[in-house]
Amino acid sequence: MLKNWKTGAVALLFALGGHGAWGQAPAPAAAKTAAKTDSLAIRRIFDEALVRGQSYENLRYLCTRIGGRLAGSPQAALAVEWGRQTMEKAGFDRVYTQEVLVPHWVRGERERAEIIGRKGKGVVANVCALGSSPGTGGKLRAGVVEVKSFEELKALPDAAVKGKFVFFNRAFDDALIEPGQAYGRAGDQRRSGPAEAGKRGAVGALVRSLTAARDDFPHTGMTRYEPGLVPVPGAALSTNSADELSLFLKADPTLEFELEMSCLTLPDEKSYNVVGEIKGSKFPLEIITVGGHLDSWDLAQGAHDDGTGCVQSMEALRLLRAAGLKPERTMRAVLFMNEENGVRGGNEYARLAQLNHETHLAAIESDGGGFTPRGFAVDADPATVRKLARFGPLLAPYHAAAIVAGHAGTDIEPLQAAVHPKALIGYNCDSQRYFDLHHAATDTFDKVNRRELELGGASMAALLYLLGKYGL
Amino acid sequence: MLKNWKTGAVALLFALGGHGAWGQAPAPAAAKTAAKTDSLAIRRIFDEALVRGQSYENLRYLCTRIGGRLAGSPQAALAVEWGRQTMEKAGFDRVYTQEVLVPHWVRGERERAEIIGRKGKGVVANVCALGSSPGTGGKLRAGVVEVKSFEELKALPDAAVKGKFVFFNRAFDDALIEPGQAYGRAGDQRRSGPAEAGKRGAVGALVRSLTAARDDFPHTGMTRYEPGLVPVPGAALSTNSADELSLFLKADPTLEFELEMSCLTLPDEKSYNVVGEIKGSKFPLEIITVGGHLDSWDLAQGAHDDGTGCVQSMEALRLLRAAGLKPERTMRAVLFMNEENGVRGGNEYARLAQLNHETHLAAIESDGGGFTPRGFAVDADPATVRKLARFGPLLAPYHAAAIVAGHAGTDIEPLQAAVHPKALIGYNCDSQRYFDLHHAATDTFDKVNRRELELGGASMAALLYLLGKYGL
Repeated sequence: MLKNWKTGAVALLFALGGHGAWGQAPAPAAAKTAAKTDSLAIRRIFDEALVRGQSYENLRYLCTRIGGRLAGSPQAALAVEWGRQTMEKAGFDRVYTQEVLVPHWVRGERERAEIIGRKGKGVVANVCALGSSPGTGGKLRAGVVEVKSFEELKALPDAAVKGKFVFFNRAFDDALIEPGQAYGRAGDQRRSGPAEAGKRGAVGALVRSLTAARDDFPHTGMTRYEPGLVPVPGAALSTNSADELSLFLKADPTLEFELEMSCLTLPDEKSYNVVGEIKGSKFPLEIITVGGHLDSWDLAQGAHDDGTGCVQSMEALRLLRAAGLKPERTMRAVLFMNEENGVRGGNEYARLAQLNHETHLAAIESDGGGFTPRGFAVDADPATVRKLARFGPLLAPYHAAAIVAGHAGTDIEPLQAAVHPKALIGYNCDSQRYFDLHHAATDTFDKVNRRELELGGASMAALLYLLGKYGL
Repeated sequence: MLKNWKTGAVALLFALGGHGAWGQAPAPAAAKTAAKTDSLAIRRIFDEALVRGQSYENLRYLCTRIGGRLAGSPQAALAVEWGRQTMEKAGFDRVYTQEVLVPHWVRGERERAEIIGRKGKGVVANVCALGSSPGTGGKLRAGVVEVKSFEELKALPDAAVKGKFVFFNRAFDDALIEPGQAYGRAGDQRRSGPAEAGKRGAVGALVRSLTAARDDFPHTGMTRYEPGLVPVPGAALSTNSADELSLFLKADPTLEFELEMSCLTLPDEKSYNVVGEIKGSKFPLEIITVGGHLDSWDLAQGAHDDGTGCVQSMEALRLLRAAGLKPERTMRAVLFMNEENGVRGGNEYARLAQLNHETHLAAIESDGGGFTPRGFAVDADPATVRKLARFGPLLAPYHAAAIVAGHAGTDIEPLQAAVHPKALIGYNCDSQRYFDLHHAATDTFDKVNRRELELGGASMAALLYLLGKYGL
């Protein structure tokens, strides 16, 4: 259905009409020439990505040879070395690391749970510890009180909560078109559930997994405790187990839940962001960052979260070179450490940028999976969003034309206060499958489609090319 | 990122501005009211689909309880009965079948191949018979000549072809953005390769699987022989085996290939299209068809090809009812039999429509998988395409706004000559993964995402609603 590249280029000229795709509209004839140059350059980027792209094989190595790589783990250290070597092999002008101290939480060996009915018969529940949760110190057995919100918890009398597990069971709102929005609305349960339960005297918290999928896989993720308060264990239940527990509770509100988790927090570890640069030919001091996070939860291989963002970011720089496009501004690929449970890498990157008085034009992050491109979310003033949206038609042949205002990314966010880039930009792709595997054992390499992944890296490279050429 | 439904409705009014979403532009105020009514109606359709949708569980039954269902097979007969019962349970006004005689090709028990090198050592190749191929009658062993095109075959001297297997090894063009376009450009090898090889005296044809995936799964599909010529066996090789065979041939052009296939064609069988109707309240004689094909290749479960189209078509009608939208025109869900190897169901449906002097306004087909919606491809005159494209903004909140000219669907195509509907329409969805599993053992239920599937059915229902209300 889509035209081949020649037709695509012609169609673009129609789409752009007399307007340029950049800030100031040049004279119509010049605009047409520039639009044609740009559309052909972008077509070269996509050709390179689809025919000789390296994202997929790089991701295969990261996922299947290194695997899950939570900050502080030996796998995270291997991933740092892999990132450095991969960028050096790609021949970037400069490759270096930024040291950062990271939390070191480990899941430990034991992690199991049972729902125990009146006659003492147990039914296994699929659980996993939430990141930063303490262990249970052997088996922890208590009654369960189910709530759908913090308001419901607040309304409960102390006697109904004290000594029990609080079971946070508010499901994803299926009617929302973007699962990310449903995640946003249910996420407080995981982030603050255990802390709030602990404050009320509960022995622990059970949290329905943050996913629209209905299956047996619990989804982990960071939970936060307040300093000075003793943390109580927090576990995620698979959606099937959550539904089961809720059903059993209706039949027998006195049932008990037995949880055993051997997770614990060790002393902070030394780790690194990995950075690779291509120097700008005209404005070497103007920096455009593109990145993903190198750490991942330990339950799976960290494929879509966020191995894909890492390999796409490195690939975006390689694609510019391979397509013969010498960037006028400096391009920097960054593999951030510790997004999942601390954002220490993102904070350190911003701190160093400020310390070194760097000029940051824009930063792009890919942390929504390696699915078919949709476009970009821009966190910037409305005029800058509009300026960027004018690039849309150039990306339309690749289904990446939707450039809209929105949240950009957790790792690049600290740059905002530190060095005030004109725009923070998030790579947006098809979002329906992401939360099926997000933070769960299902986030493995086989869930990634080669073409979808490479199209994403090419979309990011195309935006880098345009930003590098036209600035902001 | 996407707004909730209230915001969505408001955004729509902006998007539509003073223009109506239909043929004649009414006065601005009326247009705004209509657009609001429509956007709320469509939101109700999507709510119902995402929260209480039945496509996914219907598909689970079809795929996992019935499975692959090639025309003429016992499974196809079970699928007909399942379709009838499912529509009756949905409470349509009328459910009936249309008898049709279909080809009955069976794969048989044996299907294996080896590449045999100089020392007689064999390497197993992943093969499957192409639909309508004769069997090999025991083991068939011969040399191999590789070509990339029919032109190359034509240029070969008879001696290079006679008594050998012709190996058609032109790969998908990875640079094309739509894999469907790559399929179109490589498809002649499968459709006509065996026939052309046979004409030149070859003993059989080996065809590289029509997919961009690089794996061990051969992809079957229909091949055609010319009447009066003796057909030679045709087999598909997995892309990995095709690459291997090509590599081995370079090292040893005298190697041999041994193929054994026990497939055969039996006498035609009686089968059925399944049809369900909701009568139009104002224009009952104006018919809008929505359908998919019930038959599927035998290697897998026929999930994306085309179980998804079947369940979405039935669901589209159910959604209208459940959302309280009484269609003004008659809506007809059709499960077509025998799309894969004969299109006898599609032809019979068109023949009966003509015979009964039916008025067909439009027909929609879903046969590109159950992935995230993109929009619709319209096969109609340019004015009708433009008219339909005006519905785009109403579907934008669901990412289904791209209504463009294009190929609609194989089963509804015969309607064109028979009853001249104003538009044939194909449901378009994200296309990157489809040919990874198309006609291969990997086309199973687990590859379908619940939300993506239900969003597709809802998109089709929304278009039915608009067509039913405004006509064409």
